[in-house]
Amino acid sequence: MTTTLEPTERHVTEFGAAPLMLFHYPFCPHSRFVRLVLAEIGLKPRLIEEKPWERRKEFLRLNPAGTTPVMVEEGIPPIPGADIIGEYLDETRGCGMHDRRLLPKDASGRLEVRRLSDWFNRKCFEEVTSILLTEKILKRYMRGGGAPDPQSIRVASANIRCHLAYVGWLSRTRNWLAGDRLSYADLAAAAHLSCADYLGDVPWSQNEDAKSWYARVKSRPSFRQILADRLPSMAPSPTYMDLDF
Amino acid sequence: MTTTLEPTERHVTEFGAAPLMLFHYPFCPHSRFVRLVLAEIGLKPRLIEEKPWERRKEFLRLNPAGTTPVMVEEGIPPIPGADIIGEYLDETRGCGMHDRRLLPKDASGRLEVRRLSDWFNRKCFEEVTSILLTEKILKRYMRGGGAPDPQSIRVASANIRCHLAYVGWLSRTRNWLAGDRLSYADLAAAAHLSCADYLGDVPWSQNEDAKSWYARVKSRPSFRQILADRLPSMAPSPTYMDLDF
Repeated sequence: MTTTLEPTERHVTEFGAAPLMLFHYPFCPHSRFVRLVLAEIGLKPRLIEEKPWERRKEFLRLNPAGTTPVMVEEGIPPIPGADIIGEYLDETRGCGMHDRRLLPKDASGRLEVRRLSDWFNRKCFEEVTSILLTEKILKRYMRGGGAPDPQSIRVASANIRCHLAYVGWLSRTRNWLAGDRLSYADLAAAAHLSCADYLGDVPWSQNEDAKSWYARVKSRPSFRQILADRLPSMAPSPTYMDLDF
Repeated sequence: MTTTLEPTERHVTEFGAAPLMLFHYPFCPHSRFVRLVLAEIGLKPRLIEEKPWERRKEFLRLNPAGTTPVMVEEGIPPIPGADIIGEYLDETRGCGMHDRRLLPKDASGRLEVRRLSDWFNRKCFEEVTSILLTEKILKRYMRGGGAPDPQSIRVASANIRCHLAYVGWLSRTRNWLAGDRLSYADLAAAAHLSCADYLGDVPWSQNEDAKSWYARVKSRPSFRQILADRLPSMAPSPTYMDLDF
């Protein structure tokens, strides 16, 4: 579960002693990606919930772009964004992960993991998750957010089928999405699909390969925190927590 | 200057022997960023012009996302996207660059360069260059592209002032944008501003610090190729090539 706190400067001061802090929004897929990565590495950050649309002054000081996630580690500047946090964690913790390293050592492996992570963290975000989040979540909780746009939701629903088919194809032809081992690519794809899944927007029945890959990721201990996330007055889809969906 | 070829599969076959190829679009800022990086490293790729909106089948095979740039180097899979190419080039050529390395060695330095590169390659792209390119260039050359939307252009023109002010502030408080040395951050910012500059859309008179930083980047030998780019039947702004603008 995430820690919800009053958005004041107290965060930084109060948690100054915490070795690792993550400013995140529970339904931001890029934040979920980083939470999964940290859990797979075995790191337990202090989680601080941030609502990026509030544009809190103290948060903008950590990341002028105003986006989640931002990781704060003692002795170095705040680290903004899923990609940059991923590179930093690989550079500082990757070697110690040995054969569980989430970004492989060899050049071809690194390329494929980065290509697919970017595919999900950027392309799938633009075409699917950012639309669903804006229309179904942010508009509900932002003051003056307006009504959801059914046309945009239809576009995202059509797009998610292509991304699901790609996940299915990758997991059918490889063990994990980018190759033999679990990598950033799996965690990025699962982070985005899990946000859509909470809303009941993943047509799992359309692709058995994708579904069986997701069941494997979902049953990892690192995923438990994600399955425990809840939106106020919006229950998850009936199978969100179900490991045998 | 860039090499323009018929968009056929001949590219890959014909240039199979070239040690390094870059599929790029001359007015794609991410392609310009990679061309600048390669020139700073001292690498001379075979440049192949690609019009991403044509969605050429052979190009989609190199990068299913269909976006430029894509770098092809013998023995490894095609490398898509400015960020991933940047990481790859640092990993394979960074050490040999010594104190001219474009992504510093220390953790804090790497963070700041990555943060700013991302700021320009993503945020400035979304808020400024992608709008200007779509409205003023792509709509002109794409079949059925439609008329430019003046409202979108006004938004981009307002946004560029903020990015210019940020560049000005960074270059006033540091030697180069991310610190003491030229880095990916400078090349990313300059790649985006140079596209807007071709169109005459950078209000240089608003910020002397940004202007003087850009004059320094523009006078580097790596920049010559960018200043030689031309769009058919659309001349550059009067000062585009002028080093003393």
